[in-house]
This record gives sequence, structure tokens and C-alpha cells, in this order.
Amino acid sequence: MKKRPLILIANDDGITSKGIKFLVSVMKELGDVVVVAPDSPQSGQGHAITIEDPLRYHSSDIFPEENVSAYQCSGTPADCVKLAKNHILETLPDLVVSGVNHGSNTSVSVLYSGTMSAALEAAIEGLPSIGFSVCDYGFDAEFEHTRSFVKQIAEKVLKEGMPKGVAWNVNFPKIGTEPIKGLKVCRQADGKWQEQFDERVNPVGKKYLWLTGKFVNRDTGSDTDEWAINNNYGSIVPTQIDMTAHEYRLKLAEKVAEEGF
Amino acid sequence: MKKRPLILIANDDGITSKGIKFLVSVMKELGDVVVVAPDSPQSGQGHAITIEDPLRYHSSDIFPEENVSAYQCSGTPADCVKLAKNHILETLPDLVVSGVNHGSNTSVSVLYSGTMSAALEAAIEGLPSIGFSVCDYGFDAEFEHTRSFVKQIAEKVLKEGMPKGVAWNVNFPKIGTEPIKGLKVCRQADGKWQEQFDERVNPVGKKYLWLTGKFVNRDTGSDTDEWAINNNYGSIVPTQIDMTAHEYRLKLAEKVAEEGF
Repeated sequence: MKKRPLILIANDDGITSKGIKFLVSVMKELGDVVVVAPDSPQSGQGHAITIEDPLRYHSSDIFPEENVSAYQCSGTPADCVKLAKNHILETLPDLVVSGVNHGSNTSVSVLYSGTMSAALEAAIEGLPSIGFSVCDYGFDAEFEHTRSFVKQIAEKVLKEGMPKGVAWNVNFPKIGTEPIKGLKVCRQADGKWQEQFDERVNPVGKKYLWLTGKFVNRDTGSDTDEWAINNNYGSIVPTQIDMTAHEYRLKLAEKVAEEGF
Repeated sequence: MKKRPLILIANDDGITSKGIKFLVSVMKELGDVVVVAPDSPQSGQGHAITIEDPLRYHSSDIFPEENVSAYQCSGTPADCVKLAKNHILETLPDLVVSGVNHGSNTSVSVLYSGTMSAALEAAIEGLPSIGFSVCDYGFDAEFEHTRSFVKQIAEKVLKEGMPKGVAWNVNFPKIGTEPIKGLKVCRQADGKWQEQFDERVNPVGKKYLWLTGKFVNRDTGSDTDEWAINNNYGSIVPTQIDMTAHEYRLKLAEKVAEEGF
């Protein structure tokens, strides 16, 4: 009998979130699951790691299912993957999945995303990895409408793998009246968050600010993650750890070779 | 008379660090400088932003130089740039520089780097931006050996700009017996941190871990930032906010179009 694959699950909303519970319920059908997730919400942590403070972790009985073991960690999503692969697991996982995030990680949000940092941390190690997000920020967000797609995507990646240094950034629309139409392989839309700072005064008279903002899509293409989400598709953006702007790099290197710096 | 350029400076080692003081001393020669920097060290913060807590900032008299104003902020490097461009500055800066970081940000460290997150945050806005780092982690790191290069690079970018969505990731070797040989336009080396967790016990008997690790360069190319640094050159890696793995994306999209998902 073929060995069941080992699947590592991390997230950024914390080990008690509804999204990770949903992801465990899908992945336990596909393999043996180990969860290593933050003990508290870590949204917006980007690829932060804990280097100035100690890390702690404990085994958790939060997932009583067979074939699932779980650990909660005091650190960030990236810390959780480092801890799993270097300290907790005896063998490297066959697949690393992160999420399901409560909220969108399309477009430039990939840079801020703790969910994707866990997936990209696995990609640094050359492990096939996927970050899943649903465009619903609610604590009680709905995930069931994505179940068949999440399973199908994980099965495909377990079977076919992916290039080293790549992780898939998968986003799904919030549940609507129509079922999700299907999946699109996309590029990251050119967008930004247009921030505003909401200035307030605390009870002892000190000023403080809340970062607020709305997402602005500057991209008119129909091959982007934003287009897919807004047209009721799930989006898959293969995302890489190499951030070099290769084309411009070559042009700049040529120019410098000709003209000097 | 031509207006002096407006230069925004951020960093991740905090407003009191030696590296930002050095960067101010270079940039005040080139333009009017506004510093918005964290009030405490933020190393390893990646592209973290503060969304679950309030932000605070105060003007600071830490830089008494003419043409320099400064603010310290309770947030991350990315927060500092958001705060500057949306709340503190009346006009967008002509150039955003970050650092000089105490420590290397070559290769995959770009993902963990608070220094580069400030530069990339500016790149999202389409502003020319540069993150500077010296491969010396010391609190009292030496920066003077990079002065002429830092100035030359900033002057070049002020004059020529850079494409939208790009920031330069500039690293310099630690001071050595020979002067730095020159500058190389590079790609991000394929490397990783090989982590180990140092397990200890605190005075009341509780276990805790320190994340430790050493950098492993898996890249044999001589066109990488790691090669440049190890051969006593300054490295310039044009780094982009678009993390899409474009080539693989196109192949995958074709395959899915042919075979279905």
C-alpha cells in the first residue's frame, strides 16, 4: 500500500480560526496532517520572523481527528513553517498548505500576507506549497463553497508537484448566490491599498491612528487574480521567491556596462 | 534655481541606529530630507503592517541638521512609509531610501527584510526607492566605506528614475582591508537560511527556543548579489513587487487549457 502523504498546515489567523479547521477537514482526506499554527491571530505579518524574542510551542488537542496532530506556536506564520521543518517533523512534508485565510490575498496583498509567507517559506525549502484565501474577512466567514476546489487543487499539486521556489497563491470569492464557476491560472494584478489614517484621541488625551484603506485595482487585464475573483472564479497565481526584476535587470546591466555607473 | 528634491528616509533598525544617521548625512547633501522611522528596532519584520493595533508617531529632534525633519513611529518599516506618504508629507517624495541596514539583505533575505519592505512599499506607489544594507550586523557597524557609492547610486536614481513597481536592493560588503571594488547589477542569489532551534529552559522551568541559522548559498552563478558581496563589490538587485512566476504561469495556464484542471 502506498504511504499516505504528509501534509503540513499553517495559517495566519491562528490555530483556533474557522479557516484552518476547514482546511484540516479537507486535508485529512488526502493524507496525514500535522498542524503548526500561531497561538494568536497574525494577520498582516508579511514575512516577519521572530529573531529578537524567544519562541514557544506546545502540542494541542484542538483537532481530535485521527491522522491529525497539532502544535500551537507563539511566533509568526513563517516561524511556524521553520519550526515544523527544522524541529517538529522527522521528515519533510509532501505538501504545505496555509490558510484558509479569512480575507483576500490577491494582487499586492501577497506582500503583506502571513498566509502566503508560510507558503513561500516552504517554497524556499523546495516544498510544493499553497496558500488558500477566501475574500471574506468575517470571523465567521463561509468556506464550504470552496471545498471541492481546495481538494482538487491539493490533489493536483500532490500528484504533479511544482517548480522549486514557487508557491501557489489561491483566492476564492466570498460565497454568493451562484456557485464558483471554476479556476483560472492568473498573474498578480497591479493594484495597491489606498490608505487613510483615522486619527483619534484616547481617554487620557493622547493621539493615535488606525491604518485604514481600500484596495484600488489599477489593472485592466482579464488574466489577473482580481479579474477572476470579481467574475466568480477561483484564482491561482504561481508566486515565486525570486523577486528580481529580470528584464529590467538585464537592460540596466547592459546600460551600466556601456556607460559606466 | 531648481527645487531641491524631497527625500524620504525610513529603516528597520530604528531611528536611533547608526545606519540611518549615516544615510541622513549622505542624503542631506542631495535634497531636503524627511525621516520617518520606527521608534524601536524592527529587524526581520518582513512586510508586516500594523492593522490590529493603533499607531503613534511624534516629531523628533534627533537630527538637528538643516533641511532634515524627523518623526518616530510605533509601527513597522512599511507602516512608516504609509504614514509618511498618506499623513505626514504634503507632496510625494522624489526618492525613498531605507537603511542603511546593519546586516545583509542579499538573496532570499529580501523576503524577511524590513529595510526592503519600506523600499517596496514606496515602489507600490510608483516612487523610485532604494534599500541599502551593509553586511555587518554590529550595533556599531562601519558605514563610511560605502559613502561615495551610496551617494552615487542615489544621484543616479534621482536623475534617471526607475520603472514603476521596482525598488533597488543594494548591499555592501563589511569593511575590509581593501576598498570596495565597484558596483555590480545582479540577480537575487538562490539561497536559504538553514535554521536550527536552540532549546533552553527559563528560570521557572519552561522551555523556549531561539531561532538560529546560517545562510547557505545554493547558487553557483557569478551574476548574483552573493557573488558580488563575496568578491568585494556592492550589489544592486532591481527587485519587483510583482511576485508572479510568469514563465511557469504561462506553461501551467496552457496545460490547464488543454487538459482541464
